[in-house]
Amino acid sequence: MRIESKKIEFNQELTLECGKSLPKFDLMVETYGELNEKKTNAILVCHAFSGNHHAAGMLESETTAGWWDQIIGPDKAIDTNKYFVVSSNNIGGCSGSSGPASENPLNGEIYGADFPVVSVTDWVNTQKILMDHLGIDKWELVLGGSLGGMQALQWAISFPEHVKKAGIFAAAAQASTQNIAMNEVARESIRKDENFYGGFYLKNKTKPKKGLKTARMLGHITYLSEEHMDLRFGRKFQDIESRVATDVDFQIENYLQYKGEKFSDAFDANTYILMTKAMDNYDPASLTGGILEDALKNVKSRLLVVGFKTDWLFPPKKGKEIQLAAMRSGVDSSFVILDGKHGHDSFLFLSDRYFKLIRSFLES
Amino acid sequence: MRIESKKIEFNQELTLECGKSLPKFDLMVETYGELNEKKTNAILVCHAFSGNHHAAGMLESETTAGWWDQIIGPDKAIDTNKYFVVSSNNIGGCSGSSGPASENPLNGEIYGADFPVVSVTDWVNTQKILMDHLGIDKWELVLGGSLGGMQALQWAISFPEHVKKAGIFAAAAQASTQNIAMNEVARESIRKDENFYGGFYLKNKTKPKKGLKTARMLGHITYLSEEHMDLRFGRKFQDIESRVATDVDFQIENYLQYKGEKFSDAFDANTYILMTKAMDNYDPASLTGGILEDALKNVKSRLLVVGFKTDWLFPPKKGKEIQLAAMRSGVDSSFVILDGKHGHDSFLFLSDRYFKLIRSFLES
Repeated sequence: MRIESKKIEFNQELTLECGKSLPKFDLMVETYGELNEKKTNAILVCHAFSGNHHAAGMLESETTAGWWDQIIGPDKAIDTNKYFVVSSNNIGGCSGSSGPASENPLNGEIYGADFPVVSVTDWVNTQKILMDHLGIDKWELVLGGSLGGMQALQWAISFPEHVKKAGIFAAAAQASTQNIAMNEVARESIRKDENFYGGFYLKNKTKPKKGLKTARMLGHITYLSEEHMDLRFGRKFQDIESRVATDVDFQIENYLQYKGEKFSDAFDANTYILMTKAMDNYDPASLTGGILEDALKNVKSRLLVVGFKTDWLFPPKKGKEIQLAAMRSGVDSSFVILDGKHGHDSFLFLSDRYFKLIRSFLES
Repeated sequence: MRIESKKIEFNQELTLECGKSLPKFDLMVETYGELNEKKTNAILVCHAFSGNHHAAGMLESETTAGWWDQIIGPDKAIDTNKYFVVSSNNIGGCSGSSGPASENPLNGEIYGADFPVVSVTDWVNTQKILMDHLGIDKWELVLGGSLGGMQALQWAISFPEHVKKAGIFAAAAQASTQNIAMNEVARESIRKDENFYGGFYLKNKTKPKKGLKTARMLGHITYLSEEHMDLRFGRKFQDIESRVATDVDFQIENYLQYKGEKFSDAFDANTYILMTKAMDNYDPASLTGGILEDALKNVKSRLLVVGFKTDWLFPPKKGKEIQLAAMRSGVDSSFVILDGKHGHDSFLFLSDRYFKLIRSFLES
């Protein structure tokens, strides 16, 4: 599989939904497979909350396979022998695209908390600019899970002429009160870390690692299903020899401590805040008086909405809401509930049914 | 209603389940109503996680009515015209009983992190010592909600001859993996506050208020039902004028910020850690090879187990497990699911059915 990874600089002002603008911006982009001559075989993959442009394969410079490597590749559900797959890091991210850890071209300093609030719609707009840059007129498919599914939905709303199909997995047309509440606790934990410095921690040559760790530990609880946690960890005690922290008694505590610590080394705290805010704020129906079907009335793409039975962050009923609204708007759509034992994270893991579903949607 | 509130000093060593001991200990106790001559009308009420001895009424020295004032009082479900109700602050607490903020009699310093790990069984043991001190031989009823319900269950197990009836509300015979996970995130947030000082913050003349606030914000999400949060807050924005923090966008964020801030002024962080550990560690079946019915085989009390439909911390199925085990052990027991719109906190709020249930259980 041909993989290309590069940072693309866009020397143009980008006005964001919040009213602020970036004087210019970079997108970190990875592509898999080859674009055909007519440029009609392109698929856009949108990443979730803590994902990035590295969706599949593994370049020599990379240490892990991409987050959707089970799905994207030669002969996989998204077959790179046939399709050209594009994946970019969202602005506000921390994997190479312009974000809070980037330099502000206006003053040469790191943005930090000065990086403006970004939205799902902003991401879709930058992906459209990338699409134009690549000379692609229509995506065969735009798809993603979780926050990535929100982007796929917004693509169908924002650019109906440029998306043939949209795959919306483990997503919702709006975050629930409980989603917002959980995200606010995570943000609070970051903001109150003594090394946060109001978001200007990099200028102060430090990072709010402790707060970011706590935030991620909480996140993990919402990504896993309760059943899966019960089966995998139950009330089992952690061996004292393999404890990652002295206060750990149970295996589940050790797991969260380990995952949180690892994440806090790699991720950016301001990005965590921006991504959760984008998730909380996403609500296409808010522009049409709260009526989702009105927000979908210009959609021309076919929609495949998938919910996972054990997902309690965006449970299947949230997917069903999208499909019902699409149906009422006369949008060609289908809704499928898959088993998926990994809770919200199930969208990341291959299963036979998942494979067939994506394949048949692509080939239909 | 006659209310008495006093601190009782027990000048005796108390050996705890963890193997450590307290050289002596205090219990802060409140009583409601009058003990009859034969001392046969006594009821013990056990408090939940952040509760204390102040369960009902309001003395001149107190600023709020007790946490179960809807249930306990003249002509209320627990009628103080008829019964003498005893309520004490658990050891390890922060409302007057010996706890991490008390002075260690061995060295004259504040205990802080040196206060030993306490358990539900330890609490029941101290309540038994209090019972002996009061000259009571048998409780008419021991009851409580949440962690208080765990104590009521443990009373029936530890002292079968001394409890006529036990009321176990919104409780479980063991915390789930997810419960433990949530509690660990809360503890992590406290431990990583720069003012925690490994638990010796009072010696350092400070308090880990920020960490405690985050912990409580998370706790609140688990106490409320998702449905109730949706109905009450939904995705409504907070008025800018009434925001309690500048980062607040949604009403639910404001609510959590307000509740968390208030709590962090009043509660002790070490107590928070001890109480969550006691909840995580409680597991009577662990002493009988994981078989709950074996743990219950000496129980002589009648059990009333109540679950609340919207409770997702200890959902009704957890109560059902207790009653099924009791039934298999031949223990006289019943299980009732009540509606309760307040999620886990529903056990605090009166309803007609709740009133009748407690009344008829008491009078049966």
